[in-house]
Amino acid sequence: MTVTKPTIAVLGGTGQEGSGIALRFAHAGHRVLIGSRDAARAAEKAADLNKRLASPLIEGRDLPSAAGSAEIVVLSVPYAAQQATARQVQEHLRGKILIDVTVPLVPPKVSVVQLPDGQSCVKALQSALGEEVRVVSAFQNVSAHRLLDLAASVDCDVLVCADDAEARATVCRLIESIGMTAIDAGVLANSVVAESLTSVLIWINRTRKVPASGIRITGLG
Amino acid sequence: MTVTKPTIAVLGGTGQEGSGIALRFAHAGHRVLIGSRDAARAAEKAADLNKRLASPLIEGRDLPSAAGSAEIVVLSVPYAAQQATARQVQEHLRGKILIDVTVPLVPPKVSVVQLPDGQSCVKALQSALGEEVRVVSAFQNVSAHRLLDLAASVDCDVLVCADDAEARATVCRLIESIGMTAIDAGVLANSVVAESLTSVLIWINRTRKVPASGIRITGLG
Repeated sequence: MTVTKPTIAVLGGTGQEGSGIALRFAHAGHRVLIGSRDAARAAEKAADLNKRLASPLIEGRDLPSAAGSAEIVVLSVPYAAQQATARQVQEHLRGKILIDVTVPLVPPKVSVVQLPDGQSCVKALQSALGEEVRVVSAFQNVSAHRLLDLAASVDCDVLVCADDAEARATVCRLIESIGMTAIDAGVLANSVVAESLTSVLIWINRTRKVPASGIRITGLG
Repeated sequence: MTVTKPTIAVLGGTGQEGSGIALRFAHAGHRVLIGSRDAARAAEKAADLNKRLASPLIEGRDLPSAAGSAEIVVLSVPYAAQQATARQVQEHLRGKILIDVTVPLVPPKVSVVQLPDGQSCVKALQSALGEEVRVVSAFQNVSAHRLLDLAASVDCDVLVCADDAEARATVCRLIESIGMTAIDAGVLANSVVAESLTSVLIWINRTRKVPASGIRITGLG
């Protein structure tokens, strides 16, 4: 039996983290659409990443075209652009899973946890978009460094949160299918953990002088 | 050279988590004072724990006596009692390190992150006590189940946060000296990670049907 792999759009896929996610999905055989405000830059990044793959599965698009042509959409933009980017393509997200990778870092103190209103910014996005869009939080703690190094396995678990339990389970399976370990971490409010942990990992990278610390959940037997 | 091991008070040491911390420090050779509102209960718990140790290093005390006779104080009480307990012994904490283990769980939904005012409750305690007390956040993610099982190593890193860098380093060394792995996780604001992660670990314990999930930081080389 052939299982059809969903097409994945990565909005903000020209950035480091988005590029890494796009590369990992394409490496696992998914068709990937990199979405950017600048379609030419998206095409350039797609060509660049395709050079590293056996088959050219990545295409560049503008944001609405990427979101509209994909079955699952990943949002990987700076926090300041999170809500505006999602709203720009909102009509193309209806009924779809939106995997939000956003970490609410506040430069210059990116190694200090500073959650906006002390809440999950992914939960805030779910509230803004409404129930038509199935928002799932994931990938905040996996460094671009690790994602872009296809020769190495990603030694970091992916915490997955969503209020929609079915969407959460789907994204967990999707992540496992591309060779990474997904952890069902509960409702969207729990995304606070992944969003704040990134600042701690940045702190650890600096103080321990390592390129890409991460986490593993222990005690799973 | 003999290194003198500081005496440790564990306020709330009659509870599960506090008992586990008391036991691990005593097992490593520290004199430990279990502090409780009820000195008789503290003595009972101390006797109970001492049975498991080669030498009877644990004593029970009331809260002020425990805090006053120790060099380092651990606070391990329910969130609802955190500030009142610390204030009750505040005069005995001057100039000392206070290791706050508090997790702000909101029953009955303890597997949902619900940080009070969206902030670290340990940071809030530091603000309440003032700079005279050197508050350090630690141990939130290590389950009592693991701590109380002396036959097993604790397969969970301890995230350590403090605004006082020297106090943070001292507590990291102290934790390493009792056979556990400490991670310098930065300033007290970063304690949000450890405080919220406990709800996720409770969720994981339930959904994966395991007694005591935990975390490890990866990528430290």
